[in-house]
Amino acid sequence: MSLKETSDISIKEVRRDFPVFRHYPSLAYLDSAATAQKPQSVIDAVKGFYERENANVHRAVYPLAEKSTALYESSRSEVARFIGAERDELIFTKGSTESLNIIANALATSGRYKTFVVPTFEHHSNFLPWQYHSLKNEIKFVALPIMGAELTMTEVEENLTGVEAPFVFSIGGLINATGYRTPFEDLTELVHSFGGLIVIDGAQLVPHEIFDFKKVNSDFLVFSGHKMLAETGIGCLVGRAELLDDLTPFVFGGGMVDRVSIETSSYAKERTSRLEGGTQNISGAVSLASACRYLNKIGMSAIHKHVSYLTETAREMLKQISNVTVYSPPDSHAILLFSHKNIHSHDLAEFLGRTQEVAIRSGHHCAQLQMEALGITSACRASFYFYNTVEDVERLIEGISKAERWFL
Amino acid sequence: MSLKETSDISIKEVRRDFPVFRHYPSLAYLDSAATAQKPQSVIDAVKGFYERENANVHRAVYPLAEKSTALYESSRSEVARFIGAERDELIFTKGSTESLNIIANALATSGRYKTFVVPTFEHHSNFLPWQYHSLKNEIKFVALPIMGAELTMTEVEENLTGVEAPFVFSIGGLINATGYRTPFEDLTELVHSFGGLIVIDGAQLVPHEIFDFKKVNSDFLVFSGHKMLAETGIGCLVGRAELLDDLTPFVFGGGMVDRVSIETSSYAKERTSRLEGGTQNISGAVSLASACRYLNKIGMSAIHKHVSYLTETAREMLKQISNVTVYSPPDSHAILLFSHKNIHSHDLAEFLGRTQEVAIRSGHHCAQLQMEALGITSACRASFYFYNTVEDVERLIEGISKAERWFL
Repeated sequence: MSLKETSDISIKEVRRDFPVFRHYPSLAYLDSAATAQKPQSVIDAVKGFYERENANVHRAVYPLAEKSTALYESSRSEVARFIGAERDELIFTKGSTESLNIIANALATSGRYKTFVVPTFEHHSNFLPWQYHSLKNEIKFVALPIMGAELTMTEVEENLTGVEAPFVFSIGGLINATGYRTPFEDLTELVHSFGGLIVIDGAQLVPHEIFDFKKVNSDFLVFSGHKMLAETGIGCLVGRAELLDDLTPFVFGGGMVDRVSIETSSYAKERTSRLEGGTQNISGAVSLASACRYLNKIGMSAIHKHVSYLTETAREMLKQISNVTVYSPPDSHAILLFSHKNIHSHDLAEFLGRTQEVAIRSGHHCAQLQMEALGITSACRASFYFYNTVEDVERLIEGISKAERWFL
Repeated sequence: MSLKETSDISIKEVRRDFPVFRHYPSLAYLDSAATAQKPQSVIDAVKGFYERENANVHRAVYPLAEKSTALYESSRSEVARFIGAERDELIFTKGSTESLNIIANALATSGRYKTFVVPTFEHHSNFLPWQYHSLKNEIKFVALPIMGAELTMTEVEENLTGVEAPFVFSIGGLINATGYRTPFEDLTELVHSFGGLIVIDGAQLVPHEIFDFKKVNSDFLVFSGHKMLAETGIGCLVGRAELLDDLTPFVFGGGMVDRVSIETSSYAKERTSRLEGGTQNISGAVSLASACRYLNKIGMSAIHKHVSYLTETAREMLKQISNVTVYSPPDSHAILLFSHKNIHSHDLAEFLGRTQEVAIRSGHHCAQLQMEALGITSACRASFYFYNTVEDVERLIEGISKAERWFL
C-alpha cells in the first residue's frame, strides 16, 4: 500500500523524511493524536536556527537579531496563511492548552459574557479553563450533555435556547478521544444566531484538514505545533482582530508593555506584542512554519484522503474482531477509540507496545466525561497520520489477535 | 587572551563548541543577557530527541513514550540538581516570565498575603505580574524605590518596617539592566525575619554563578533556559515543596487533573503534574538538562571568573572614553549599562552592529523605572558570557571610537 494509491505521493518517500522510522524501522506509530513525529526538514530548521540565526527578537538593531526577528515574524505570516488568517490575528503561545486558558481568562474577566457553554466530550484542556474561570467570575457554566460520542444541531439548538447571551461556546473540531468530526461550520452560524462567540479547538483538526479561518467565520481558533510536525512548546491563538484587541493579557512581562509606572501600567497597543509577554519560543515558531511548508508540500487533501483510508480500513478490521467495541462514530477521522471485552485497555496497549512495536494509547485520554458518556473508564486509542501504512493497521489487528492468545 | 588565563579551559576550544562562531567568525556577540548562544551538544540533544526519542510523555505504556517520559523526568532531576533543589521542587514552564506570573497569580488569589514588595530596578517581568495581580486582588503593592542602581540592606529594612505581613518580596539575583548583583542571601534572611516570603528572579543569575536553593533558603526561584544555552520556550519555577503544594494552577488542561465532573473538578496531588497542564516543551527540558551538563563541564567557577575579568576589563576601558558614562555599579557582573554623551544609544548600537559586527543592545531593557532612576530613557548594554574574549571587548571599545569619528 502506498500513499500513491490514495494520492500522488509515495508513502515510501514520505517515510524516508522521518528519521524516527530509520531508527525504528518496525515501529507502527499509531499515537499521532498525542504527538506527531517530525520530518528531517523541521528538525533541520530548528538546528539551523540555533546554529546560524539565534538572537532574541524585537529588541535589538544588530544584524543577527534583525535576522531572527524577521524569521520569527515571517513564521507568523506563514502559519497564519496556513489557516487562512491575517498575520496580526495570530498569537504564538505554548500550545492549545495555553491558548484556551488565555481566552477563557480574558473573556471571563471582561465582564461581558454571561454564560460559557462546552460539550462534555471535550478534552480537559477545552473544559477545565471554562469551568474554572466561570466559577471564579460568577459566570454560568453549561456543560452541554453528550449522549455517546456525537452531538446533533437540534441538541445544541435546544441547549442554547434559554442560555443567557452574550455567551461563549467552545468546541473541538475533531474530538481527541474519538476522532468525531464536529459540524463546527454549522455550529458557528448557529452560535452567532443566538448571540454567542464560538471558539474552535483545532488541536486535532488543523493537522488533518484545510481550515480557513476567514471562511469558517469563527471567533477564535487554537491549535498546537507538536501535533502537526513542529516542536513541543509552540502553539497558536487565532482571533478576529477586534476580539484580540479586547483580550486582557494572561502573562505580564517584557515586550508587552507601553508605559510602566509605580501606580499602574499600560500595555502595548499592537496585539501580537500585548499577548506575547516575555521571550517566546522562537525556534518553536520557526519549526511550525517549517511544518506548514512540509504539510503543504505533501498536500492537505492528499493527507486527508490517505488518513481517511487508513481510519476506515482499521475500523472495518476492528469490527471483525468479535470482542472489540469501536466507540468512534461513523463520521470520525484519524482516531479510533476501542476496547476489548476481556482485556483491559492498559494491558492491551502494553502488550502491543512491548511485544509488537505497535504504539497506541490507553486510558481516559484526558476526557473523563466523554468516557462516562460511553459508559467506560478507559479505552484504547489508535490514531493515524499520513506517514502510517496499511501495514501499520494490519500490525495492530494481528497484535490484538496475538494478545487474545496471550491473555485469554 | 584565553579562558585558560582565568581558568583551566581554553577559550579557543570553547568557541569551537558554538556553531554560531563558525558561521560568523568575526561576530563579537555581546548580548548574552538577552539570549545565550548554543553549543553543538545542546543543539544535538534537541535533534537527537526528535529523531529517536519523540513521543508524548506521562500518558502511554509503549517503549518510545516510556523513553521520552524517562528523559523528561531525568532532565527535571538534572536541572534541579544544577540549582540544588529536589526534583519535585522544580516545575517546567515556558520561561522566567511565565514562572513569575504563575507565582504572582497564585499568591495573590490565595488570600493569604497582604502586601507585594518589588524594587523599581526590576525587569518588567518581575514587576508587572506583581503590580497587576495585587491591584486585581486588593493587595497592597509597594514599589521599593531605588536611588541609582543599587539598594542597601538599611533601605530595604526601612521599607519593610511597617509593611503588613505576610508579604511577598520579589527580587532579581542579577539585575537585567545594569548587572547589579543583589545581596539576595542577606535579603532572604531579612525578609524572613519580617514574616515575608522571598522570590528570586534568577534569569540573569543562574547562568553566571552556582546557586544552591537549599543553602540560600529562599522560597521561590525562577529562571529561563535560553539565557543559559538551552532552547527558547523552557524555564523553571522552583519552590519549597509545601509552598508549591499550595499554588493554584495557572493553566488548566490535560495531565493536571484528578477528577473532572460537570460541577467542579479536583486537581492532581502530585505538584509537578498539577502545575504542568497540557503538553510541555519536552525538547526544551531535554535541552536545558544538556545545557546544565555543558556548564558543569566548563565549571561554573571558571565561568564566573572569566566573565568577571571581561566585565572589569570592559568597565576600565569604557571609563577611559571621556564621553561615556557607565551606569553599572561596582558590584555588577556580566552586564555593563552605558551611554555616550553625544551619540544616541540606538545610533551607537546600530553603528556597532552594522559596521563593526559588535552586537550590543540599546533601549530601556524592559526596565523603564530603572532608567528613570538613572535619569535616562535609553542606554547601551553590553553583556558577556564565557565564550567571549578580551578581543570582543577591544572591538567594542574600538567600535565606539570609530562611532565618534563617524557621528561627531
